[in-house]
Amino acid sequence: MAHNLLAGKRGIIFGALNDMSIAWKVAEKAVEEGAQIVLTNTPVAVRMGTINELGEKLNAPVVASDATSVEDLQQLFIQAQKLLGGKIDFVLHSIGMSPNVRKKRTYDDLDYDMLDKTLDISAISFHKMIQTAKKLDAISEGGSILALSYVAAQRTFYGYNDMADAKSLLESIARSFGYIYGREKGVRVNTISQSPTMTTAGSGVKGFDGLFDFSDRMSPLGNASAEECADYCIVMFSDLTKKVTMQNLFHDGGFSSMGMSLRGMTQYNKSFIEQNTDKDGHIIYG
Amino acid sequence: MAHNLLAGKRGIIFGALNDMSIAWKVAEKAVEEGAQIVLTNTPVAVRMGTINELGEKLNAPVVASDATSVEDLQQLFIQAQKLLGGKIDFVLHSIGMSPNVRKKRTYDDLDYDMLDKTLDISAISFHKMIQTAKKLDAISEGGSILALSYVAAQRTFYGYNDMADAKSLLESIARSFGYIYGREKGVRVNTISQSPTMTTAGSGVKGFDGLFDFSDRMSPLGNASAEECADYCIVMFSDLTKKVTMQNLFHDGGFSSMGMSLRGMTQYNKSFIEQNTDKDGHIIYG
Amino acid sequence: MAHNLLAGKRGIIFGALNDMSIAWKVAEKAVEEGAQIVLTNTPVAVRMGTINELGEKLNAPVVASDATSVEDLQQLFIQAQKLLGGKIDFVLHSIGMSPNVRKKRTYDDLDYDMLDKTLDISAISFHKMIQTAKKLDAISEGGSILALSYVAAQRTFYGYNDMADAKSLLESIARSFGYIYGREKGVRVNTISQSPTMTTAGSGVKGFDGLFDFSDRMSPLGNASAEECADYCIVMFSDLTKKVTMQNLFHDGGFSSMGMSLRGMTQYNKSFIEQNTDKDGHIIYG
Amino acid sequence: MAHNLLAGKRGIIFGALNDMSIAWKVAEKAVEEGAQIVLTNTPVAVRMGTINELGEKLNAPVVASDATSVEDLQQLFIQAQKLLGGKIDFVLHSIGMSPNVRKKRTYDDLDYDMLDKTLDISAISFHKMIQTAKKLDAISEGGSILALSYVAAQRTFYGYNDMADAKSLLESIARSFGYIYGREKGVRVNTISQSPTMTTAGSGVKGFDGLFDFSDRMSPLGNASAEECADYCIVMFSDLTKKVTMQNLFHDGGFSSMGMSLRGMTQYNKSFIEQNTDKDGHIIYG
Repeated sequence: MAHNLLAGKRGIIFGALNDMSIAWKVAEKAVEEGAQIVLTNTPVAVRMGTINELGEKLNAPVVASDATSVEDLQQLFIQAQKLLGGKIDFVLHSIGMSPNVRKKRTYDDLDYDMLDKTLDISAISFHKMIQTAKKLDAISEGGSILALSYVAAQRTFYGYNDMADAKSLLESIARSFGYIYGREKGVRVNTISQSPTMTTAGSGVKGFDGLFDFSDRMSPLGNASAEECADYCIVMFSDLTKKVTMQNLFHDGGFSSMGMSLRGMTQYNKSFIEQNTDKDGHIIYG
Repeated sequence: MAHNLLAGKRGIIFGALNDMSIAWKVAEKAVEEGAQIVLTNTPVAVRMGTINELGEKLNAPVVASDATSVEDLQQLFIQAQKLLGGKIDFVLHSIGMSPNVRKKRTYDDLDYDMLDKTLDISAISFHKMIQTAKKLDAISEGGSILALSYVAAQRTFYGYNDMADAKSLLESIARSFGYIYGREKGVRVNTISQSPTMTTAGSGVKGFDGLFDFSDRMSPLGNASAEECADYCIVMFSDLTKKVTMQNLFHDGGFSSMGMSLRGMTQYNKSFIEQNTDKDGHIIYG
Repeated sequence: MAHNLLAGKRGIIFGALNDMSIAWKVAEKAVEEGAQIVLTNTPVAVRMGTINELGEKLNAPVVASDATSVEDLQQLFIQAQKLLGGKIDFVLHSIGMSPNVRKKRTYDDLDYDMLDKTLDISAISFHKMIQTAKKLDAISEGGSILALSYVAAQRTFYGYNDMADAKSLLESIARSFGYIYGREKGVRVNTISQSPTMTTAGSGVKGFDGLFDFSDRMSPLGNASAEECADYCIVMFSDLTKKVTMQNLFHDGGFSSMGMSLRGMTQYNKSFIEQNTDKDGHIIYG
Repeated sequence: MAHNLLAGKRGIIFGALNDMSIAWKVAEKAVEEGAQIVLTNTPVAVRMGTINELGEKLNAPVVASDATSVEDLQQLFIQAQKLLGGKIDFVLHSIGMSPNVRKKRTYDDLDYDMLDKTLDISAISFHKMIQTAKKLDAISEGGSILALSYVAAQRTFYGYNDMADAKSLLESIARSFGYIYGREKGVRVNTISQSPTMTTAGSGVKGFDGLFDFSDRMSPLGNASAEECADYCIVMFSDLTKKVTMQNLFHDGGFSSMGMSLRGMTQYNKSFIEQNTDKDGHIIYG
């Protein structure tokens, strides 16, 4: 059920790859809620994914653009304003990638060129996007800029590697630019810290299934889905949250405020089943 | 402009005193958004304030109830369900009072009976409200419970006194009960940490004007108003935030993420004007 | 190996029950480091525990005192100054108890008189202690006041119940009074948030063993022991930390900054062993 | 008064420039407390500053090394172990520099090559340092690694610019590597978040004097000095804090837990003196 929350608004959605992507769901909901949008992703992602299908379905132009290139971003913001007929009201940054993770370099064996890439793609691109938009005065007064983050920015998760540092940097950029863009144009900048989500990116993380299960059992409401995340993004783009800025908003079924749940502990305790052994160390079966 | 975000929902709003109250604005917006509500406050507040006017205007029953009394709360939840024709979907707790502040007892000279009252009225009432509702199974699956808080729960503000401790306790109760009520019924429990607001309660705080100004200059978007807070409450009551729980959500124009703004610092630096003195220590007037 | 860190200092240690108590270890180390101390606990605890043995061993007077009674606290601070020959330099608050936990009242079935007791014993006693000391001007300039806390103040742990709320309140009191006592007398007030510890109190918590194991595997350095906690307390009492105040200091082998460790996840994943079933749902044994 | 806290320990101190540097004070105290140390800084800093004087005074070798160069760091750790006769027990990272700040590029006009340098010098150098040390197995079991940070990692300060993002990244690296190095070798990794300090670096920050004054009046214990910071570093290098890891430790006289102090507010309120105007808007002088 749509509420017309984004009627008349113009947005740019970065990072939809395929129909598992959170950005894909955000795009669908934004249009449902009355917005006109431009979809964007890197040229490679546009070719490899199915973003063009989404564009057709939503009647939304797809503009290929590398978010680490200031030039590309300039072109994108100029074109998007032309295509949509005015300044941009909301932007979603749903971008993250670590070459170190892909190449299975552990955190104590990082390749520093790859680390630079991780930070550039996953965090600095957010600064470039905002700085470029601001220089072009492309965001309308009171606009809303969002990036997706993960609780690894605050707490260390085995295997998340240099993406944790990238997310910390991303959240810091949201605060730093939230101050500047807020005082001058009333533009909000926030991050949503989402549950582990079964996207193409998410499921690439080492040991993702176990983590997904643990996270789900720890969270009183269970993991939040991509659709639910999209609902929250809509809320943050709407005029109902005009004084929320420089915040990292946990959208995670309660995970971030949990130390240990009964469900988590019960499952964990089952792991000691192998300790039911007889005096010779043989397992006792039931 | 309403969005029908609470169509068909039933709510209870605690704490509207007069038209400066945040709870008052929440009540108005909730009805605008399609909800049916019951208004409640203590018998004294009902008599002294103008809540009955609001009830008439919104066609909302007013039920006097002392939120520190489990019996009163039981009656309230039973009656509200009858009046509204079903289980309750959302609850707002906007209650806070410190006898120590009123009696000008400083934090190093607290009266401990008064401290008990501060905690009971401002924090434990939230637990009583939720426990009572849960025992009566009065909240519908996926319902949303909110309380209003202040950043003094995290950082010390001169003059806020034992209300800071009450707010910390309140936010802890939100987390603790958010876990329990979430896992069993999918009910969300959150707090909104609001800017200093020109309400009857707010303006009673010592040195409120200076703090209000400082807070406004520190926040890139300025202080959030009562109306804007009401918008955010609506969002948190709606189905668009179903996986947000156990969170303290800052609604403060960015204040909580600021260390020092240019506007704040510029104003602060003006305070040293008296240091413009000549060599004999006399002030030099421009 | 002692370092003479508390040479010439006078301290009061609340809460040693027996030789498993953290307060017991702190008392031993404080004396080793050159301090003179007074030991105190409730009259009941003095009778039931072995604190008098400790007093003899350390040549430290034992003064029975109920930390929820302002009168008792007054007597204690007056007497301690007489016994030790001067103002007090450091105080340890290691006190916590929940009648609701003892009586197995769950968090959604709290008895409110018991909740008042939980808060009074575990948190408000800290305020009473500091207010009483300050009124008597019993703490020396630059003194150090510490209380022991637990990460449940920030995150919800199954079974920790209303003690979580008490710890939040305790940490808030540390901040609130840290401001007041700091600005006037340079007195520091902090809390140490300690790993789950095998004390008489700790091991009474429901499901403590599982939690202890989980916490240990999540923490890169493992759980911190009572002895190690005592070392950290000494540091906080010493002159080497004179500008640390209003802080909650995690002493937990890294637990508070962990989301998921390899050891934790590996153990957790073992719990799914029972899912090795054949098509009829029978478990397949190896 | 020394306590022999670092007797027999070997350390490397990065970042002493001159006798105003925090690293300088840490070096002095570390030697006082019984440690042998190697001093290091970039070749340029070694030439421009007075670190060689310090080396002579403390009988500590000075090894020029660029902390952004893995090769230099390898040479440094190899040489330091030779010079000190064994593995390294503690390391201080006191390094930070932003070309954007130096060139007066505002946060909405960053040069991205300069941002890369800011991050490389101020944060990634910390990762390089630890990764290099770990690959060489140069840190002894239970060693302690520290970096200096600032509260701008959590809250935005006007003019601190991209250094805020660098400090966030630095603190994240401390957590991420703290997990890895802790579980494998018991090595602690922490950051100390220090008050604004009158060093050569600190006083270069825009509007530093006003901020220093504000920070001092907000902090109940006043700003922490470089000497006091050095004391805290010693504590973190000692064996008394062996279970503290992955933490950001505020050493700031209470600033980080303050919202508004009486002294801060009183000073701030003086800034409104110009509002004493007559009905024609003319200032009324006394």
